[in-house]
Amino acid sequence: MPTYSIGLDFGTESVRALLVDVATGEAVATAVEAYSDGVIDERLPGSTNRLPPDWALQNPADWLTGLERTIAAVLAQSRIDPSTVAGIGLDFTSCTVLPARADGTPLCEIPAFRGERHAWPKLWKHHGAQAQADRVTAHAAARGEKWLARYGGRISSEWLLPKALEIAEEAADLFEAADRFVEGADWVVWRLTDTLARNACAAGYKGTWHKQEGDPSHDFLAGLRPGFEALYASKVPRDVVSPGTAVGHLTPAWAERLHLPVATAVAAPIIDAHAAVLGGGVAGPGTFVMMMGTSTCHLLLADAERPVEGMAGVVEDGIVPGYFAYESGQAAVGDLFAWYAQHAVPPAYHAAAAKEALSVQAQLTSKAEGMGPGSSGLLVLDWWQGNRSTLGRSDLSGLIVGATLSTRPEEIFHALVEATAFGTRAIVESYTDQALPVSSIVAGGGLTRNAMLMQIYADVTGRQIAVAGAPQASALGAAMLGAVAAGARRGGHDALTDAVARMAPGPARLYEPIEANRRHYDLLYREYKRLYDYFGRGGSEVMRTLRGMRRRM
Amino acid sequence: MPTYSIGLDFGTESVRALLVDVATGEAVATAVEAYSDGVIDERLPGSTNRLPPDWALQNPADWLTGLERTIAAVLAQSRIDPSTVAGIGLDFTSCTVLPARADGTPLCEIPAFRGERHAWPKLWKHHGAQAQADRVTAHAAARGEKWLARYGGRISSEWLLPKALEIAEEAADLFEAADRFVEGADWVVWRLTDTLARNACAAGYKGTWHKQEGDPSHDFLAGLRPGFEALYASKVPRDVVSPGTAVGHLTPAWAERLHLPVATAVAAPIIDAHAAVLGGGVAGPGTFVMMMGTSTCHLLLADAERPVEGMAGVVEDGIVPGYFAYESGQAAVGDLFAWYAQHAVPPAYHAAAAKEALSVQAQLTSKAEGMGPGSSGLLVLDWWQGNRSTLGRSDLSGLIVGATLSTRPEEIFHALVEATAFGTRAIVESYTDQALPVSSIVAGGGLTRNAMLMQIYADVTGRQIAVAGAPQASALGAAMLGAVAAGARRGGHDALTDAVARMAPGPARLYEPIEANRRHYDLLYREYKRLYDYFGRGGSEVMRTLRGMRRRM
Repeated sequence: MPTYSIGLDFGTESVRALLVDVATGEAVATAVEAYSDGVIDERLPGSTNRLPPDWALQNPADWLTGLERTIAAVLAQSRIDPSTVAGIGLDFTSCTVLPARADGTPLCEIPAFRGERHAWPKLWKHHGAQAQADRVTAHAAARGEKWLARYGGRISSEWLLPKALEIAEEAADLFEAADRFVEGADWVVWRLTDTLARNACAAGYKGTWHKQEGDPSHDFLAGLRPGFEALYASKVPRDVVSPGTAVGHLTPAWAERLHLPVATAVAAPIIDAHAAVLGGGVAGPGTFVMMMGTSTCHLLLADAERPVEGMAGVVEDGIVPGYFAYESGQAAVGDLFAWYAQHAVPPAYHAAAAKEALSVQAQLTSKAEGMGPGSSGLLVLDWWQGNRSTLGRSDLSGLIVGATLSTRPEEIFHALVEATAFGTRAIVESYTDQALPVSSIVAGGGLTRNAMLMQIYADVTGRQIAVAGAPQASALGAAMLGAVAAGARRGGHDALTDAVARMAPGPARLYEPIEANRRHYDLLYREYKRLYDYFGRGGSEVMRTLRGMRRRM
Repeated sequence: MPTYSIGLDFGTESVRALLVDVATGEAVATAVEAYSDGVIDERLPGSTNRLPPDWALQNPADWLTGLERTIAAVLAQSRIDPSTVAGIGLDFTSCTVLPARADGTPLCEIPAFRGERHAWPKLWKHHGAQAQADRVTAHAAARGEKWLARYGGRISSEWLLPKALEIAEEAADLFEAADRFVEGADWVVWRLTDTLARNACAAGYKGTWHKQEGDPSHDFLAGLRPGFEALYASKVPRDVVSPGTAVGHLTPAWAERLHLPVATAVAAPIIDAHAAVLGGGVAGPGTFVMMMGTSTCHLLLADAERPVEGMAGVVEDGIVPGYFAYESGQAAVGDLFAWYAQHAVPPAYHAAAAKEALSVQAQLTSKAEGMGPGSSGLLVLDWWQGNRSTLGRSDLSGLIVGATLSTRPEEIFHALVEATAFGTRAIVESYTDQALPVSSIVAGGGLTRNAMLMQIYADVTGRQIAVAGAPQASALGAAMLGAVAAGARRGGHDALTDAVARMAPGPARLYEPIEANRRHYDLLYREYKRLYDYFGRGGSEVMRTLRGMRRRM
């Protein structure tokens, strides 16, 4: 009789459950439940006060309701014997963090605090802590904290330290009342198992934790604000566990509520994008993973920790125990194409798209198909949101060169696609320059549906690209963690790599570099890199100057 | 009783007559007649054979019919006594050139040649002689001909030498049969007066003539093609006359046909754009004239001949006897805005424009009004058609830097307008760098209707801009030449400057630089010039490389 694992994928708007056969990875059933309160960015539930701009909260009750309903749904759909469910794994947006009491009660569920906005979980895209983030970065730079380089020299407002400091500064009583600051993923596991641990993935990428060096020092935190050292001293869980480690088993109450055995193992969770590495079939060095959506997240496993230019983070045991997991990113990819389609494509193209029931981007793609490398005569620097990866500069901006009166929209679109591929190649080279091998690429996310784009990426990077075969790669990755937690006595590296090898489907599609195109793109990439160095490394500071003039006017 | 002059403005599609009071410049009547055969670019009249692409011819009979009908119309409208018409002046597109017999018969009117396409007048925008132009330029460069520098180092395919060489090479019998190669303007004057002369304006700008040095040498022409030296030896008129010189009086036959006195003086003509300098009220140094349309033509009078960077030509006596008239140009101005409106503005802006019955450019302008210098965060190099003025390079292309996801169409449009103003400032500085003064600016052409654009030009150049008051500045300039030819016994400098002072209306509008904007634009122009030098003077050859890749794909 088969054994099953349930992967729970907690996204921004909803949670998905995926019931998977542990032996084969076959997806037996799936269900999605939207959060009742969704993203709370206007008013707290039951309140009429408007939240400040840039705020984004969630209701932790939605997470529990969502997992209960989706698990019930996949059990009902599949009609399997619930006693054959051996494990549960979770992936989660991050850094989505909440203050809680020592018994796990979120502060927002305590009546006295329910109307306090700082009592609620701050969603990953809560941007209210930008001032705190800037101060954390500046303070770390001033003290020469060496961990700053692991994050490309910049602490994001989305991460733990700024979000916790925002509470400490703006709601000191709540900071005081919070016995724990917990990632949403860890809080759900805490609820299910009555055991609190800190997952290494979120801790490392978003919580400034390092396996050898631990957390930032008491002195560093006290220097930010007297008393803030309490954060790591007592409020953040001390027990850090790598993804797939069995944190515990379902409590009797939760076993009953979910109609699952109390023996069901619950795995240490993982960040959603990182779960897709596993679901995409990657569990070892040499394969570069791209999750391509509005922005692109790049992940690479390697044997060693090295100073990769502009990386967003590197975490030992962050994805697969025993490996260092590197993360980089391109801030505007799908967002850049969407900007172009919305703000710079003329009516005739919109009309043609509507007539053929295509998106404008699909229409542009159909007109651009068959264009060769450089045939637009255009070259683009894809820095519409700055370059936060290899160059680590948010003050850069987009550039288009080569326009003539005969330039047409599909040519601009083609050049924008090429530019994002060049940006990816620059990131790949930031790894290979450090002798971290990248022999092939696995891609996931919405943009993989664009075959022209994928071929350009293969031609530009000169590497085979496999489109991940699992339609729900993150949920599958989470289910793999559940399988490992259930099955492996020793847990860890081998169990997870075995699970990935066994449970990941083959690629949906393969794109091989076309040799003639690759050679042309080598020439064009050389030109791209010249512009990249000139505008990105101090040859010209015009982008920074223009941003400054724009702010001042 | 007042005395009148008729200005005839021969354009690309039609001829206009303007009847003007010689004492005041008041326009009494005007009429326009379209050419029956228009621009002949598909088939010769009466033929079914298609012309090659890039060909553009005219029918000389249309010029005569047009002048006859428009003069009849202005006489009828005004009801003046025809005997009070003292002079006729002409301006004409150039280089529009035709082969003719010694008696003035165009070859295309000789039945044996009527079916030969090379027998017809080649309109200024005939581009069939590009290969010949390239060879003329290369041959002149190889021989170190110093006159090449006067034309920015490049002989255009639109000019006399390439057009005549095209005939010599492709229809040797016609070259042989042509006793004369004549500008259309000179041919019309020849017909009206039975006197053939070569006007200094077209001869200098389009015919490689120089007052001191004459024409290119026998050796140079023979080196292009044996026998081609006949062009300047016998076929091009030897008598060069400056604008406003009386070439002669109406022949009795033409006087009768036009119902005008035989005493009516006919002036040496001028190129149409150059006539607008006079009609715009400029007859001396220090005032920079811009004719702003699809492209912009810049003209400046000065006391001396100096090596101005990238000028399109400098001709002594070319506009006003006694002065050197310099010409520069920006290849894409209105064309650039039109390209943008057509190919890169989204549907919402087109819909809003239609709703308000505005052009898309007017709609963009209304949204961009009030934006300060640099407030778009964008900077543009306006080289969509290369930079044929100061840099003299057709292999350059357009560049936009500073784009972000919040960039909107009106910001791009504003930056495009700023860029063309920066291009103009670079041209102004190419004169002032040679100690040729530019103290103010007079502007004409369609773009002067855009007040936002005009203010930006004033702010960027730091100079007052007067919009020419005459709605038909070229026709008025031509009428001034007719007045001078009629009245001045000695002709020349003083008579023409007097006529301009007396007959030009005051400016329609004045734009003064706004000091705060000027200072901001000084900063932004410095950034523009850095990019200009980097991409235009060898810092980066990426524009040339991209054009090369585009051609090869």
